[in-house]
Amino acid sequence: MQAEITREYVEQVEEAIARRDDAFILGTMDDLYPADITTVLYELDEQESKYVMDLLPAEVGAQILSDLDYDIRTSFLQTFTSQEIARYIDLMDSDDAVDILNEQSVQTREEVIALLENEEKTAAILDLLHYEEDCAGGLMAKELIKVNLNWRVRQCIEEIRRQAENVQRIYTVYVVDNRDVLVGRVSVKTLLLAKDDKLVKDIYNPDVISIASFRDEGEVVSVMQKYDLEAIPVVNIQGRLLGRITIDDVVDVMQEQAELSRQLMTGITENVEEDDSVFRISRSRLPWLVIGMIGGLLAAQFMGFFEDDIALLPAVALFVPLITATGGNVGIQSSSIIIQTLSSNEVVFENFAERMLKVLTVALLNALIISALVFGLTYLFRHELTLSIVVSAALFSVVILASLMGTLTPMVLDRFGVNPAVAAGPFITTANDLLGLAIYFSVAHLLYNL
Amino acid sequence: MQAEITREYVEQVEEAIARRDDAFILGTMDDLYPADITTVLYELDEQESKYVMDLLPAEVGAQILSDLDYDIRTSFLQTFTSQEIARYIDLMDSDDAVDILNEQSVQTREEVIALLENEEKTAAILDLLHYEEDCAGGLMAKELIKVNLNWRVRQCIEEIRRQAENVQRIYTVYVVDNRDVLVGRVSVKTLLLAKDDKLVKDIYNPDVISIASFRDEGEVVSVMQKYDLEAIPVVNIQGRLLGRITIDDVVDVMQEQAELSRQLMTGITENVEEDDSVFRISRSRLPWLVIGMIGGLLAAQFMGFFEDDIALLPAVALFVPLITATGGNVGIQSSSIIIQTLSSNEVVFENFAERMLKVLTVALLNALIISALVFGLTYLFRHELTLSIVVSAALFSVVILASLMGTLTPMVLDRFGVNPAVAAGPFITTANDLLGLAIYFSVAHLLYNL
Repeated sequence: MQAEITREYVEQVEEAIARRDDAFILGTMDDLYPADITTVLYELDEQESKYVMDLLPAEVGAQILSDLDYDIRTSFLQTFTSQEIARYIDLMDSDDAVDILNEQSVQTREEVIALLENEEKTAAILDLLHYEEDCAGGLMAKELIKVNLNWRVRQCIEEIRRQAENVQRIYTVYVVDNRDVLVGRVSVKTLLLAKDDKLVKDIYNPDVISIASFRDEGEVVSVMQKYDLEAIPVVNIQGRLLGRITIDDVVDVMQEQAELSRQLMTGITENVEEDDSVFRISRSRLPWLVIGMIGGLLAAQFMGFFEDDIALLPAVALFVPLITATGGNVGIQSSSIIIQTLSSNEVVFENFAERMLKVLTVALLNALIISALVFGLTYLFRHELTLSIVVSAALFSVVILASLMGTLTPMVLDRFGVNPAVAAGPFITTANDLLGLAIYFSVAHLLYNL
Repeated sequence: MQAEITREYVEQVEEAIARRDDAFILGTMDDLYPADITTVLYELDEQESKYVMDLLPAEVGAQILSDLDYDIRTSFLQTFTSQEIARYIDLMDSDDAVDILNEQSVQTREEVIALLENEEKTAAILDLLHYEEDCAGGLMAKELIKVNLNWRVRQCIEEIRRQAENVQRIYTVYVVDNRDVLVGRVSVKTLLLAKDDKLVKDIYNPDVISIASFRDEGEVVSVMQKYDLEAIPVVNIQGRLLGRITIDDVVDVMQEQAELSRQLMTGITENVEEDDSVFRISRSRLPWLVIGMIGGLLAAQFMGFFEDDIALLPAVALFVPLITATGGNVGIQSSSIIIQTLSSNEVVFENFAERMLKVLTVALLNALIISALVFGLTYLFRHELTLSIVVSAALFSVVILASLMGTLTPMVLDRFGVNPAVAAGPFITTANDLLGLAIYFSVAHLLYNL
């Protein structure tokens, strides 16, 4: 069973490291899964972690290194020699190996590759190093099981036995022709059920969903999710089988994408986590704070035109936060809904006019309710009819315009290839603040005959 | 290869339905995967979709129904008789069958179950109906392959051949003892490599990660992701093997959770999509708009105490949007970072004081930079020293306090079992507006000696 890592256990490990009690460390970690040991290492410092890694069997160490967070791993591996890194790389799946090599300096990378012992793995790694990291080719591993169209079941089973040593999980057996072009698949189940002397070409399934190596990782995610695949073969432009991508890597990509969207929507420009350095967190947050600040100063500049009005009628100023907050809330809600549509896999053919009509109807409904409430409450508390009309009329227009802005901005960004989530955060808020104030003060100026 | 569904094709299908051209529909859909046909159905109305479903083989129809979005499916199935639903349910995996049955009225559900022909499936369904939908038991399917500890490899292969007919994907073969308690696993690979007369107990792997049926679906996601599992066995409190959860269902849960968080963070209270009804979208958005509105009116009420100050010094009012916007942006950024930590699987033992110290350091750094910039720019444009000091000093305090609020609120909510994402949206913004204004006007009142 999986273990619950307790704070007590981490402290015991730290003490054991201090007194060099290797027996305790090895004895207790023997019962743990590598993923659990990784959790423990996150709580230790780099020297302590290195001490534990040196004790553990290389197979376990290789899995831990594959698991580690990219930035923690990069700094951790700087305490390793090229020989040590090579020993772990030799035991990893080619996709994980390449990820780690890509994080090293050119010199370390070359040294490590020269030190690798497994020739097949070295060839796979050299091949994979050619692909961009965020395309299908960059996600795939070379480890897979393939059989030839013209083989008999008996030969397949033998070949699977041979190939299976390097492949952790089989999933599907891919069928290729003599030129290595992917022509179909055959499940282990079918091979088990078939007679030994049957030909692959008589039992294989020619329906196989594959993806070209140059496709973006986002496409890999949507295809695998749409067709419920646990692995997808990657082919080159001629249809030759290059490798395969497994669902566990795709789950990681999904997680990263969700986090990235959330961060973009909340005005954070880099992929930061709580345990990053103060400087890095601060830097990731400053750009949007500065943009928001410039927006605020522009708003001040704009409201400055109405400074005399405010002196005469200070009550008008009191409702500024109501106007800007409502505009911001409506804008963010609208962009959230459209971003969800834009990022979903469903093809949406609905035409533009129809969509806008719907956005407008929802906006009208909400604008009516909110401004009626505000009119009633303002009049109730202040008994000023003109003021109540000014505030509620401005609010009505703000809700409508903020809905349109919030819907259109992500669509425009998406059209120009920018991640629409960028628009949902401070950008919409800042733009809507200015828009809302312009409407509010124009309405006030007009209705008060100032 | 997977198909690209074009608008033209959807129109051709619509015309074919209108002129009852079954040959065209069946002929072209024969080349499509069920998931692609689902995409086409999303573009048709319910009557057209029903017409296509009636034409398609029941196996394909069953897959399409499993794929459909929950709310679309519920309304779509109301046009089906219980007989028709039962025909599809008979061909589905038990987990999908139960999901659909749970969406029906009690009467339809009872009718459909009575009409099922596959006895083994009926028993599985009746069993699964006992579990809550959002726990491990509610996610699992009964279809899996298990072998007894005391069997020989030969017997296993035979049993796999028998069981495999009902199981789409094998993944792992589970090993149970005579009381059906899960004791380990054995891969198909190992069985293939082993001699026919070996005993399971001599070749199986006793290390198997399982999950108890009452665990929350969020725990299922984190365990499967942490250990990179493509399937996880579900056991009861005695350790008996009940079913298994496959990665494709977990990917769907992840997607739903990410969407839910995003919607909560953007002030949308129900799970809505762009194609939901105007009324439903509007209703999902109103609660936060009303709360934001109340916040705005409270702000107006509060600023009312300073109405005389504003009349005397209208310039103070100009910077209200800057103060509220900055407070909002800082608050959302802070909560975004802490929510990410709270929702990640890593165990975080870092102590509270350390974490707060870091939040404060980042806040101090950003507050210094932003308020220095604002001081400089305000003085540059307006040449009023007191005003520049008031605005930048208030902004400094707002950044610090909004950081603390944005960090603490999600932590408190999480402690009380509320989804912390609720806090990141309009809640933080509204609270920070009020907080920011209180600080700003107090500082102004103080420094101007009003």
